[in-house]
Amino acid sequence: MAFGVAARLALLFALATCAVAGVTSEYRRKLEATVDMPLDADVFRVPSGYNAPQQVHITLGDQTGTAMTVSWVTANEEGSSTVRYGRSAEKLEQAAEGRHARYDYFNYTSGFIHHCTLTGLSHATKYYYAMGFGHTVRTFSFTTPPLPAPDAPFKFGLIGDLGQTFDSNSTLAHYEANGGDAVLFLGDLSYADNYPLHDNRRWDSWARFVERSVAYQPWIWTAGNHELDFEPSLGETVPFKPFVHRYPTPYRAAGSTEPFWYSVKVASAHVIVLASYSAYGKYTPQWAWLQQELTKRVDRKVTPWLIVLMHSPWYNSNNYHYMEGETMRVQFERWLVDAKVDLVLAGHVHSYERARRFSNIEYNIVNGKATPAPNRDAPVYITIGDGGNIEGIANNFTAPQPAYSAFREASFGHATLEIKNRTHAYYAWHRNHDGAKAVADAVWFTNRYWMPTDDDHV
Amino acid sequence: MAFGVAARLALLFALATCAVAGVTSEYRRKLEATVDMPLDADVFRVPSGYNAPQQVHITLGDQTGTAMTVSWVTANEEGSSTVRYGRSAEKLEQAAEGRHARYDYFNYTSGFIHHCTLTGLSHATKYYYAMGFGHTVRTFSFTTPPLPAPDAPFKFGLIGDLGQTFDSNSTLAHYEANGGDAVLFLGDLSYADNYPLHDNRRWDSWARFVERSVAYQPWIWTAGNHELDFEPSLGETVPFKPFVHRYPTPYRAAGSTEPFWYSVKVASAHVIVLASYSAYGKYTPQWAWLQQELTKRVDRKVTPWLIVLMHSPWYNSNNYHYMEGETMRVQFERWLVDAKVDLVLAGHVHSYERARRFSNIEYNIVNGKATPAPNRDAPVYITIGDGGNIEGIANNFTAPQPAYSAFREASFGHATLEIKNRTHAYYAWHRNHDGAKAVADAVWFTNRYWMPTDDDHV
Repeated sequence: MAFGVAARLALLFALATCAVAGVTSEYRRKLEATVDMPLDADVFRVPSGYNAPQQVHITLGDQTGTAMTVSWVTANEEGSSTVRYGRSAEKLEQAAEGRHARYDYFNYTSGFIHHCTLTGLSHATKYYYAMGFGHTVRTFSFTTPPLPAPDAPFKFGLIGDLGQTFDSNSTLAHYEANGGDAVLFLGDLSYADNYPLHDNRRWDSWARFVERSVAYQPWIWTAGNHELDFEPSLGETVPFKPFVHRYPTPYRAAGSTEPFWYSVKVASAHVIVLASYSAYGKYTPQWAWLQQELTKRVDRKVTPWLIVLMHSPWYNSNNYHYMEGETMRVQFERWLVDAKVDLVLAGHVHSYERARRFSNIEYNIVNGKATPAPNRDAPVYITIGDGGNIEGIANNFTAPQPAYSAFREASFGHATLEIKNRTHAYYAWHRNHDGAKAVADAVWFTNRYWMPTDDDHV
Repeated sequence: MAFGVAARLALLFALATCAVAGVTSEYRRKLEATVDMPLDADVFRVPSGYNAPQQVHITLGDQTGTAMTVSWVTANEEGSSTVRYGRSAEKLEQAAEGRHARYDYFNYTSGFIHHCTLTGLSHATKYYYAMGFGHTVRTFSFTTPPLPAPDAPFKFGLIGDLGQTFDSNSTLAHYEANGGDAVLFLGDLSYADNYPLHDNRRWDSWARFVERSVAYQPWIWTAGNHELDFEPSLGETVPFKPFVHRYPTPYRAAGSTEPFWYSVKVASAHVIVLASYSAYGKYTPQWAWLQQELTKRVDRKVTPWLIVLMHSPWYNSNNYHYMEGETMRVQFERWLVDAKVDLVLAGHVHSYERARRFSNIEYNIVNGKATPAPNRDAPVYITIGDGGNIEGIANNFTAPQPAYSAFREASFGHATLEIKNRTHAYYAWHRNHDGAKAVADAVWFTNRYWMPTDDDHV
């Protein structure tokens, strides 16, 4: 699907072979420059046909997937916002009417961005859907998640900080080969803001690049700092403007009041998305929502696996962005430990790291107790910001490796989380090693609610 | 001006004489119930005359006071948004045209809220101003602050968490008697949100109550948690709705993008207002603004005194709201120490406390260095949330008194800060002791930029 860039990939990985082995469990890759794929790369190709729907992606339209929001862009004219869908590709019996909007960002005007929510879907069912009626029709498909149930198996992909480099393409290809059902995306999508004037055409190209996955399965979006697009010097003072126009989230269904924090219930997992770049001080909307969510709405008997996503990690030992997550950790860590969260997934740091079950919640200002300590009630913290974006790898870890850090490596890649049942989940980090996917870190997790015993991560 | 409540005040303070003396420097007052003044109290009286302007208040309209925003409410009909003003009460030669807006909050609809900014004012000059033309005209006056200059003296009042109880009235009366030129208000104005459905009529009554001061001198507003009025159960999901409609701030003049963080330059003081209930994580708008403000826009040669306001305190040893400010401290403390901020003023805790020059900026997660330590570059932290609101006094301090705490007492009151010149400022806390104002804590501060020697606050 990306043969045009295959040659470039080969060249790049050849260059990358000058890798330097680090200390045990710390494979260090020489910092090669990541390179964005050029706008004429085949992965960015605009689909043929007048006003053809492009940048197609789906998002859960409610908390469990009985609704699905289909989003796409038309470039030539407004076109139809209708989606036709059904269980047979030949007979799309149902129709839903969406809406569209455009936005301006400095000197850029977006295409016509359509969002259309399909409702009343059955769980664990394959649907075909099509849009572009009146001009060029394109057809895709997805399978809805199973009904939330304690032993419903599910396979998540974990990707963060993807960008649109040759490495990004490698990461995505490897994830596709691994065959997950949905992606937990840890923020920082397109990195358009790294271009002059936040060149929003790179939001478009990114959405065309990932269409091959995200048109077919839902990606759960976390807002990263590269979604802020806050640039007063350009007169752009409303944070997240491109992101909110392009990537809807089912926040209202989750009782949230902003798109940046919300939750979904997929199979046996309750997934909470937090916002590193919104307010989280006591009394703020996010704070109030999370308190209710953890104390009232999580039901481990139905969804045993409690997973929290955020962009900026709390437990990470890379000098790049070191301690940036501290302020949010100080606010929320105790709640997550009290709730026996299984996993906290973050991006932001362009490297891979898995922490042990540690917590740091005893501090009271005067007691000096501010050192992370083993705690079997604590989540495992994973930083998976190694999607491969234009900013390169973060290969400068603190030394020595702190006690809370179990595994860290400066390589691009992604992870998968295979929930087997209420007690066990198999996790694996797949690094883009020498161009091929290679499992470099794999562990079993036991559920904190159903099997809160030592799972060797303390 | 408040004779109708004087008898009630006398009664209340008589009841309050059952005070219990605490440890040295910790006078503890028995927790009497604070009582809101009834809506028919004279302090809340609607001015006579058809559609008479009420709730008149002024706010700096730019950073230094060569503009002033006049705000008021008309209740009967829209009326005129014009303000006439001039140096003579008899001859208001100039006119400015404002705008008005209304807002709905659940079952409440506001009056017509007018804001009109007078521009091109001279410094240190008394102006008379009037509004209500066409119906009932009311006239007030203010004196603009002096031109920012390193030795320009100025007297600030410091008030926080005021509310509208009999104690609030006592606090305001004592401040009036002390004769400050402007108020640094540390957040939590009306406490309307403590009433069923956030009864916004209490926003109106509060504004009528404080008109006697704030129509004549600018109060610098900090947003507190009681300004949030975030109540999804009422369908009110936009934080700060009543506050932003009623209380403008000169945030645009300060290069800010939201009303909740900004700065002003008054005489020899550069005053930075921070937002405890907005986002402050790295990369967020407030974070980006504060970085620029501290590194580019503060000029201690012009405005030697660098003062930071926030609602939720960083250094406070009351069990009430203990450690709520930690998350923001973790984010910003180093910047404030590096900038040699003189004073950090906060509210939120309904008690009085003055801290020493301490800082806690050495922590790196693994070194255990998380205990506040003396630091001559650090600000003095003052909590002045003892304005006297309906929630009562916070009389439960941590024991023992921590090293960073210099003075703490659970009494209502206010403070004054008299800046004498570039090197010295006299500070005094005036408690509402037995109904009379009494100086209970008074110290001299020396400027951190011009005289960064030990001023006995370490």
